[in-house]
Amino acid sequence: MPETSPADRRRSSIGARRNPDAEAAILTAARALLAERGYAGFSIEEVARRAGAGKPTIYRWWATKADLLIDVYAAEKASHMALPDTGALWSDLLAYTRALWGFWRDTPSGSIFRALIAEAQTTDAALSALRDKFLPDRLRDLCHMFERAAERGEIPASEIDDRVGLYIGFNWLHLLSDRLADDAPAIERTARLISGQPPGRT
Amino acid sequence: MPETSPADRRRSSIGARRNPDAEAAILTAARALLAERGYAGFSIEEVARRAGAGKPTIYRWWATKADLLIDVYAAEKASHMALPDTGALWSDLLAYTRALWGFWRDTPSGSIFRALIAEAQTTDAALSALRDKFLPDRLRDLCHMFERAAERGEIPASEIDDRVGLYIGFNWLHLLSDRLADDAPAIERTARLISGQPPGRT
Repeated sequence: MPETSPADRRRSSIGARRNPDAEAAILTAARALLAERGYAGFSIEEVARRAGAGKPTIYRWWATKADLLIDVYAAEKASHMALPDTGALWSDLLAYTRALWGFWRDTPSGSIFRALIAEAQTTDAALSALRDKFLPDRLRDLCHMFERAAERGEIPASEIDDRVGLYIGFNWLHLLSDRLADDAPAIERTARLISGQPPGRT
Repeated sequence: MPETSPADRRRSSIGARRNPDAEAAILTAARALLAERGYAGFSIEEVARRAGAGKPTIYRWWATKADLLIDVYAAEKASHMALPDTGALWSDLLAYTRALWGFWRDTPSGSIFRALIAEAQTTDAALSALRDKFLPDRLRDLCHMFERAAERGEIPASEIDDRVGLYIGFNWLHLLSDRLADDAPAIERTARLISGQPPGRT
């Protein structure tokens, strides 16, 4: 983070276009606040105070608290996780799932994402952020693994979206029922079902 | 429901063993209250008042609000839904999914179940009721469709639990992101993936 005073940052963030320094300061403050207080103790007001930014600036860039949380979560995930490329979809999914569940278990991000899904059940803005922004982005990320599998002839290209949907549902079910043990054989069985590769094939 | 006075019911419900009449009265009152006020307006106190039952009785039979809600939801689902038996797993899943999503869309049960999953993200008792009671019961119900498929040789018996898990995750993802449109072709594609039967096979 650059060494700018809160006043500098506040000044520089005026306007609809995002100022990268101010944006980074806000995301950093939001991440720290979430790590300290969790989802329940999170407020735009406190993020603004810590980042030396105005609340109107934050709301201009992130229409709702859910939108800001999604960006924090996505940035955390991108910094912790990379898409594997093992040469087969089932082993890509095995590696990715074990890393993802570990990320959910061992960092505050698991609780944050659970709280976000929970809020989407009662708040329209959070539902819309989850469904119309977060999920399409995740679908696009995950598609790369499935597209490579289609290029290798492992799955038909026409089935990519449906298989990614199955994979996201599998992960959500385990997150939301708090069953994130690193059970590699069980995860491998489901990874093989989702990738259409029965045991024995490598 | 039998014609008993609230006082009769209160008397007859003493003891750890459930009195069927009192249990039915409590479930009926809970269902009506949920239909009227939704999950947010639900309270054991109001259920007790309407059912003419004592709060201690309700808490003796259902340790938490989540346990009572799960029983109400399960009873509603059992009265609206039957497991299809079409002769193939993919068409069983297609029929069941369309019925389930309609049940979620068109009755208060969809919102109730969403609220229950949401509460499980912040309350340990609700998480435990969902994970340790509700999910194993649903798994057992759904297994029948998959067991018949295994008997017909459509899927290996060793894959039943994993495929049921994929199916539950698929439904949860659609419920929690409020994407429950009756899109039969899209549902059929996923039903075929879960049942391992590519298009063309019937």
